Amino acid sequence: MPDSLPVDSVGVVTPQTYHFETPIELACGQTLERYDLVVETYGELNADRSNAVLICHALSGHHHAAGYHSMDDRKPGWWDTCIGPGKPVDTNRFFVVCLNNLGGCHGSTGPISTNPATGKPYGPDFPVVTVGDWVKSQALLADRLGIDCWAAVVGGSLGGMQALQWSLDYPDRLKHAVAIASSPRLTAQNIAFNEVARQAITSDREFHDGRYFDFDTLPRRGLMLARMVGHITYLSDASMGEKFGRELRDQAYKFGYDAEFQVESYLRYQGERFSEVFDANTYLLMTRALDYFDPAYEFGGDLSKAMAEASCEFLVLSFSTDWRFTPARSEEMVNAMIAARRKVSYAEIDAPWGHDAFLIPTPRYTDIFTAYMDRVAREVGA
Amino acid sequence: MPDSLPVDSVGVVTPQTYHFETPIELACGQTLERYDLVVETYGELNADRSNAVLICHALSGHHHAAGYHSMDDRKPGWWDTCIGPGKPVDTNRFFVVCLNNLGGCHGSTGPISTNPATGKPYGPDFPVVTVGDWVKSQALLADRLGIDCWAAVVGGSLGGMQALQWSLDYPDRLKHAVAIASSPRLTAQNIAFNEVARQAITSDREFHDGRYFDFDTLPRRGLMLARMVGHITYLSDASMGEKFGRELRDQAYKFGYDAEFQVESYLRYQGERFSEVFDANTYLLMTRALDYFDPAYEFGGDLSKAMAEASCEFLVLSFSTDWRFTPARSEEMVNAMIAARRKVSYAEIDAPWGHDAFLIPTPRYTDIFTAYMDRVAREVGA
Repeated sequence: MPDSLPVDSVGVVTPQTYHFETPIELACGQTLERYDLVVETYGELNADRSNAVLICHALSGHHHAAGYHSMDDRKPGWWDTCIGPGKPVDTNRFFVVCLNNLGGCHGSTGPISTNPATGKPYGPDFPVVTVGDWVKSQALLADRLGIDCWAAVVGGSLGGMQALQWSLDYPDRLKHAVAIASSPRLTAQNIAFNEVARQAITSDREFHDGRYFDFDTLPRRGLMLARMVGHITYLSDASMGEKFGRELRDQAYKFGYDAEFQVESYLRYQGERFSEVFDANTYLLMTRALDYFDPAYEFGGDLSKAMAEASCEFLVLSFSTDWRFTPARSEEMVNAMIAARRKVSYAEIDAPWGHDAFLIPTPRYTDIFTAYMDRVAREVGA
Repeated sequence: MPDSLPVDSVGVVTPQTYHFETPIELACGQTLERYDLVVETYGELNADRSNAVLICHALSGHHHAAGYHSMDDRKPGWWDTCIGPGKPVDTNRFFVVCLNNLGGCHGSTGPISTNPATGKPYGPDFPVVTVGDWVKSQALLADRLGIDCWAAVVGGSLGGMQALQWSLDYPDRLKHAVAIASSPRLTAQNIAFNEVARQAITSDREFHDGRYFDFDTLPRRGLMLARMVGHITYLSDASMGEKFGRELRDQAYKFGYDAEFQVESYLRYQGERFSEVFDANTYLLMTRALDYFDPAYEFGGDLSKAMAEASCEFLVLSFSTDWRFTPARSEEMVNAMIAARRKVSYAEIDAPWGHDAFLIPTPRYTDIFTAYMDRVAREVGA
């Protein structure tokens, strides 16, 4: 962090843990008797509790979306570019809530939490959760916070899927849903990449059927490989080319298999770093939640029938070089919303960074996002 | 195989092994004192030895490009769709040569061959070879076969790179070079996928620094993962969607991590099958040869200067949905050829199958390929 706080930062923030003692039934049929959700909030809830915005995180995200945990932090939260005073999600106007999802590994109950039935970490016994389960738990969190209706539920990628699911499951509890760089369901190719990641993890000898804690080890190599594959899909061919090209670490070919190209050492570094901070069982769980997400499924594959359940307004944004969730996938959502006579604003943003573009502020993206959220704020009197 | 041979098949073929006792110096600086190349040929060499066509294979290919090894074979060679009587590479007119490249694992000298210095398999001691090394060894094979000048050197993907390299290294020894679904060099994204594959292999505990034979084992899981990643990049998002969609193996979600979607079990099956028949060290070697290929490198990155070395004519073909080697990469080649005042024919074929399209006969592809090779045949009096 800089010596002083940036003026557009929410500043130093402290996560809070909410304990839930009422059992929650999950889509898989299992029940969690009790669980914790770790939460950060930014800004102030107004008197009529109408200015709350829920931020939903993506695969490897968590509750720390903005600000710093201490003055020693080198980096702010994962979406600090979009959340703060004067930013698109303006904390001078909104009360912003971000949580680590159930099944996560950053403080909310998940595979690394202690299973009260055994006194050991859940590990592979933690149930598979779905986007619908997350939304359900987020609604219970909203109850706890005294928020009857969100001004907006906002998310990128898997976070956008949660925003979409909110609009269907609790149509009266949100005014707006914002889905950025998202998709109404994974393609076969998306699932295939997830499957490679899962196979990489479960193939690691240190995985021990998910009970690696019992063996005092971690499936680091598998998680590293999973992240490497994922990371490639977050970037565009062009942005990788721009960043690394075919640049070598040294002058000439070495005729071996050590990292010679800059892109190789970058990927290894990213993978290794990730494998030190993320839980392998959570990674499996998050990818499965992605695979399973398919709100059109119970409507015979007709997304517009699903969207007829919604009553909020929508902002959908996509990025031109995102090949993980292409603009065409966002357009599927938009078309279904239009067919269902829902109000929707849509823009495809021209940006070179692939899927990761939703984390990178660019003028048109920031302008559109800001303008939309300004309207949301005005509507709720914030 | 069907009960009788298809009329457009080259029929039952028998590979031949050529022993080379003259040392070959490789780009890495190492020398192979002696080596074998396993070769298949189809058709007859004409009296003036002018009708020979060299077929170069891709990453996982080999010498068995067409026909059957026995009447019990279920499948013909890997490019049987394009090689045979009346096919684009017409064996009634051409003498077709296909070899397993040096470093391969199908009979030519490679990591699984016995290292005369130790009496054990080379394994990781087999030198890293380059596309240039392959072309050099192919030229020595041509000498042995009495072929001074190929009517054409033809290949898809990595095979197309060899055709391109031929045109630069032995400009007087080929009349035509045909590069299909190829690229003048890998992008950072291409290298990144190769790196994931290599990390998957070398991370496998059974890899043992490449000396798995010493441990009486194979890095099957790593090779399986490598192939799974590769396989995704050979197909288009659309073709995977067409083939598998989100289809489940059973009726409903199982809320676990076993293969539930058809695409998962397909990929696992493909990966497992490949891991039983391919050598891990060869896979590393082939991917590195891909990474290193960059004929413009010694011309300051100017491909047109490289192409000025060539004197043959070119056919370049790309496929609309190939995202591994996009049409734009073929166009780079074509533009460089034009800038260097070389004769080149180019077509982008509209096909839904991604990179794999070069193996799948479609009317426009087959027609263009056939017409071009017909011209080649006429030129050489075949």
